Amino acid sequence: MKKLINEPDAVVDEMLEGMVAAHPGLRRLEGTEVVVRADAPVEGKVGIVTGGGSGHEPTHAGYIGDGMLDGAAAGEVFTSPTADQLSEMIQACDGGEGVFCVVKNYEGDVMNFETAIEMAEMEADTDVEYVVVDDDVAVEDSLYTSGRRGVAGTIFVHKVAGAMAHRGADLAEIERVAEKANDRVGTMGTALTSCVTPEKGEPTFDLGEDEIELGIGIHGEPGTERTEVMSADEITDHLAEAVLEDLDPAEGAEVATIVNGMGGTPLMELYVVNRRLQELLEDRGLETWNARVGDYMTSLDMMGCSITVLELDDELKELLAAPAETPGLTVTEG
Amino acid sequence: MKKLINEPDAVVDEMLEGMVAAHPGLRRLEGTEVVVRADAPVEGKVGIVTGGGSGHEPTHAGYIGDGMLDGAAAGEVFTSPTADQLSEMIQACDGGEGVFCVVKNYEGDVMNFETAIEMAEMEADTDVEYVVVDDDVAVEDSLYTSGRRGVAGTIFVHKVAGAMAHRGADLAEIERVAEKANDRVGTMGTALTSCVTPEKGEPTFDLGEDEIELGIGIHGEPGTERTEVMSADEITDHLAEAVLEDLDPAEGAEVATIVNGMGGTPLMELYVVNRRLQELLEDRGLETWNARVGDYMTSLDMMGCSITVLELDDELKELLAAPAETPGLTVTEG
Repeated sequence: MKKLINEPDAVVDEMLEGMVAAHPGLRRLEGTEVVVRADAPVEGKVGIVTGGGSGHEPTHAGYIGDGMLDGAAAGEVFTSPTADQLSEMIQACDGGEGVFCVVKNYEGDVMNFETAIEMAEMEADTDVEYVVVDDDVAVEDSLYTSGRRGVAGTIFVHKVAGAMAHRGADLAEIERVAEKANDRVGTMGTALTSCVTPEKGEPTFDLGEDEIELGIGIHGEPGTERTEVMSADEITDHLAEAVLEDLDPAEGAEVATIVNGMGGTPLMELYVVNRRLQELLEDRGLETWNARVGDYMTSLDMMGCSITVLELDDELKELLAAPAETPGLTVTEG
Repeated sequence: MKKLINEPDAVVDEMLEGMVAAHPGLRRLEGTEVVVRADAPVEGKVGIVTGGGSGHEPTHAGYIGDGMLDGAAAGEVFTSPTADQLSEMIQACDGGEGVFCVVKNYEGDVMNFETAIEMAEMEADTDVEYVVVDDDVAVEDSLYTSGRRGVAGTIFVHKVAGAMAHRGADLAEIERVAEKANDRVGTMGTALTSCVTPEKGEPTFDLGEDEIELGIGIHGEPGTERTEVMSADEITDHLAEAVLEDLDPAEGAEVATIVNGMGGTPLMELYVVNRRLQELLEDRGLETWNARVGDYMTSLDMMGCSITVLELDDELKELLAAPAETPGLTVTEG
């Protein structure tokens, strides 16, 4: 397998250098794989941070900027960041009002964040709260995870927490909206091909030429089933129906959606999926207020996509519509 | 090869439906594969339009919006739009000040645009001017092309022409800045794998497991050479040096750059390329004013990237910095 990399063990370091070189609003904490806003800490605002394994770009550091994240810690590919680096990030993003962490539900991430939070509280007396995002409706208790996994719905949690912090809310208010978004969002994904890690250089799992995997995790963790190749419409129906069954949105509810690419699928195909998704939502009497299509949380070079549906209320809509400017997501005024 | 599509011959139609469903600022001209601004034509402003084969998303319709394009015509995959549809687009985007067309240098595109322009002039008395973009420094007289090919540098031409029209410039002024941007931009690409068209379902060209192709075109047209797999830094040096040799920028010049993904390469790898590119430009005494990294002009699911360098002057900088809001590129005030 061919990749645009140098030494596999340098890929995270070199990627972060390339990100910071492209985006002047980002700064790397020296000697770490932590990226923060260039002007961090922002005085008088709760800092919003996240972190996790690399290989999911633009997740995580791609959502740093005004109205979203203050910091993101990058682990090695598909590996949690260390508690030391997470603690350093938390302390670097505390502008006096405390720090809120958005943690995806993987055992290593949760454990290292919990340790890091204790360290930051002990070492710097930082007030910290956190949410554990578990939007993947496919499976419970997967590889690396007790309970449900945290996947692309996390982008919505970043957005609402970031907007809430930007308008001056305190930790408790931010925790409330982050929990609300997590309660009201569901995601399910599919893989057409396996991802290939730089280290291993070959597929993480075997998938036949005529097979796809439904319910796949973003590290290639097993999903719900393997089936024969299906059409885009059939796949969309399968994913969207599983999400809606879990979410059970109110009749006539407004929703925000993401058709998320896994890294190796072209935008053309994601739009084909979005066409069917929007048709299906309309048939169900749901109203799409905002539809995102693109690579938001990838799995290296995996071909495939995930579908995310968030059931809105007025507060969530207002927070999603608030301006944000980051490398991976921009929302403009009005 | 597996793809998220339904019938191969429906893919362009379904992609356009999915785009328009995602982006309320876009509208499809009924019965065509033409997408325009929802509010087209904008009275009192020169309309900026483009078009070309599908499979390069977000090119072309992804750059429709305030400050960039008014319309984009989609051909079948890797096939020029018809003169009829191009003419319909031109007429739909004329708000009384005429229409400016950004044409990439492929024989079919140029021929069909020239015919369409004659049709629009005859049928609707529309004033039309155009630029033929030919930024690819790799080869002259390739498959489908006399002279150099038009590739990712076209994004800069869209941006400066769109900004100029937005501020009320006339056709001649827009033509001048579009020609200037085209004169000062160079691009070169590489493929790690072939693209796979929906129609054919197998690789367009054969590339060995240990081979890459330098100077590749965005339809898989032959490049300058095939070599053994190289590191990201070696590839970056090769591409950037070819571009700089052709461009021959002034000592100490300011530049804008794009590391463009071909569709199947993850963002992680594009940032690794950007790291080396910025290092090399600094070593050459050039100053990067703005660096873009992402999928701007793709080649279906091809793995690989291209590097674009634009030599700036004050006018081009001002036009690139002007606000724009499109699905594929957003520039915010300040």
